[in-house]
Amino acid sequence: MSERFWQQPLPTPSDTHYQRALARQSTLTKPPGSLGRLETLACSLSAQQHRDQPAVDRVHIAVFAGDHGIAADGVSAFPQEVTAQMVANFAAGGAAISVLARQLGATLEVLNMGVAHPLPDSSGVTDEWIAPGTANIANKPAMSTEQLEKALHAGDRSAARAAEAGAELFVGGDMGIGNTTSAAALATLLLDASVTDLVGPGTGLDADGVSRKARFITRSLERHGSSREPFEALASLGGFEVAALAGAMVGAARRGIPVLVDGFIVTSAALAAVRLRPDLAPWLHFSHQSREPGHRYLLEALQATPVLDLDMRLGEGSGAAVAVPVLRSACALHNGMATFDEAGVSDGGA
Amino acid sequence: MSERFWQQPLPTPSDTHYQRALARQSTLTKPPGSLGRLETLACSLSAQQHRDQPAVDRVHIAVFAGDHGIAADGVSAFPQEVTAQMVANFAAGGAAISVLARQLGATLEVLNMGVAHPLPDSSGVTDEWIAPGTANIANKPAMSTEQLEKALHAGDRSAARAAEAGAELFVGGDMGIGNTTSAAALATLLLDASVTDLVGPGTGLDADGVSRKARFITRSLERHGSSREPFEALASLGGFEVAALAGAMVGAARRGIPVLVDGFIVTSAALAAVRLRPDLAPWLHFSHQSREPGHRYLLEALQATPVLDLDMRLGEGSGAAVAVPVLRSACALHNGMATFDEAGVSDGGA
Repeated sequence: MSERFWQQPLPTPSDTHYQRALARQSTLTKPPGSLGRLETLACSLSAQQHRDQPAVDRVHIAVFAGDHGIAADGVSAFPQEVTAQMVANFAAGGAAISVLARQLGATLEVLNMGVAHPLPDSSGVTDEWIAPGTANIANKPAMSTEQLEKALHAGDRSAARAAEAGAELFVGGDMGIGNTTSAAALATLLLDASVTDLVGPGTGLDADGVSRKARFITRSLERHGSSREPFEALASLGGFEVAALAGAMVGAARRGIPVLVDGFIVTSAALAAVRLRPDLAPWLHFSHQSREPGHRYLLEALQATPVLDLDMRLGEGSGAAVAVPVLRSACALHNGMATFDEAGVSDGGA
Repeated sequence: MSERFWQQPLPTPSDTHYQRALARQSTLTKPPGSLGRLETLACSLSAQQHRDQPAVDRVHIAVFAGDHGIAADGVSAFPQEVTAQMVANFAAGGAAISVLARQLGATLEVLNMGVAHPLPDSSGVTDEWIAPGTANIANKPAMSTEQLEKALHAGDRSAARAAEAGAELFVGGDMGIGNTTSAAALATLLLDASVTDLVGPGTGLDADGVSRKARFITRSLERHGSSREPFEALASLGGFEVAALAGAMVGAARRGIPVLVDGFIVTSAALAAVRLRPDLAPWLHFSHQSREPGHRYLLEALQATPVLDLDMRLGEGSGAAVAVPVLRSACALHNGMATFDEAGVSDGGA
């Protein structure tokens, strides 16, 4: 595949399969439309997978971890060493996403994109290390062009491994102390929004902390140009994990794998990725409405309606993992229900 | 157990277990509260099950079917024989709830409470038949006191079988052409509400159909007394399946089994059951927000926040079945995540 994969057109979900799935839904033993979102999810998955019997049994979860220069400025409720500690926790099986991946029978890949502190134990972690965290965006661009390209390619390699494992759904997750600040800054720039629309408590800042974080983002945005070109914006304000997530989503789509997008951080990466490649949009499902206030704004900008709204705000891909069974139910119903004819049920003239 | 089980006090979920579960949540490797609803669901299940490790692996789904005299008045988009046809479809494995029960590994029980038409094949159907449908509430009470007691006891027997099978969660479902009319009438009376707050398209009426249905409910309510005593209200306006659902929910709670409530019909039964036994309330989880407009009003009256909102409006217990994996995720996370101490993760001084 070419060097700059994000500059190549993506394949298109199959409209033929979508229409055929829609027609099948109208023959199943239920009032038309009564399965709501489950019907459209099944039809979209059918179109994305080019299959009459869509399935998301095999799920690949990739959690990208990276540190942020801005963490030094006290924008998080947790100290920076937590990034490394949590990466070890992912790999050891104790984190939320580890538990959920086991429950789903999903493959879980943990990627070190640029963790600042040494990992207590790096077994089970895929090494894609670029640098000990991004630069502090208050002073300079988060990363160089070369670093951004490395991160995008690392995401694409993760998608390639997902495809090799036969994944029917790609879930990306994030870890990085300070990354809601980076994501809010990136989204504010890309959407030409007000900082207050996108800033929030992250892992648990109080109101003073949120104000400090907003002032920090405003100062950072003033320092950087106002270019909304997505590649430049990612280099100026992104995290290594956010850039890798953007690369992974494009990588999944170009291999025909639908993507289930997690919360605030992954959605900010999805925004950047859709700006890089607008033809990515029809490959994305949005899993949940995060409690992080800016997430609503981001989802609206992407015209996305999330599957769940459970007041979660953990990241790691956890919201997406919790939503996977809803997609599985949608597929099981689509594939397994009897038609009016098969069951000898009157269809009410519908 | 006594003759009138619904007059006896219910056991209480364990506050000790709730507090212990809450304390455990604060030690798990995540920012406090970041799993949102999943945290409170796990704590409630722990309290209801009197267990430190809550679980909903074993689920009992009981679908209660009954016909309605009011179906003769054209209040549904489907003809009455569909009730019998769908009961056969449940038992044969082709209906939505059949597919979902298989997916969950749940036991599925189908109960004939009073289907008007002969079943094409009654194998796999539990016979609790009371009459060929309720009376037409436009003319007389839906059922006699004796019939109501029979229905409540049938629900309790279903809960007893659930307990015998070791169920950790009880899901009730409904089938009955015309039952949104009955449920809307019952809820309008019990809540002293306006008919327009609770009437809706059901399986698919158009606007004219909904107006006709509303006028029918208004006339029926005028004919009956205005007693909001729940036993009398159920006899006047309920369905056999709605009464059995009320009995089953009380029956599950008195055996210490939490209940996951489905959509509009089951919630109307839950309302009646909570009016019969206010101590039932802490045993109920609400699975989803139905698209049937009156459901929002019902949920608000019960101060309930549903787990899902997927625009579903099928009944059968299908919305509850789709929500079961969310409860399973909540339990898996509660039981399986590492604590800050175990994982060597800094807790940010929280």
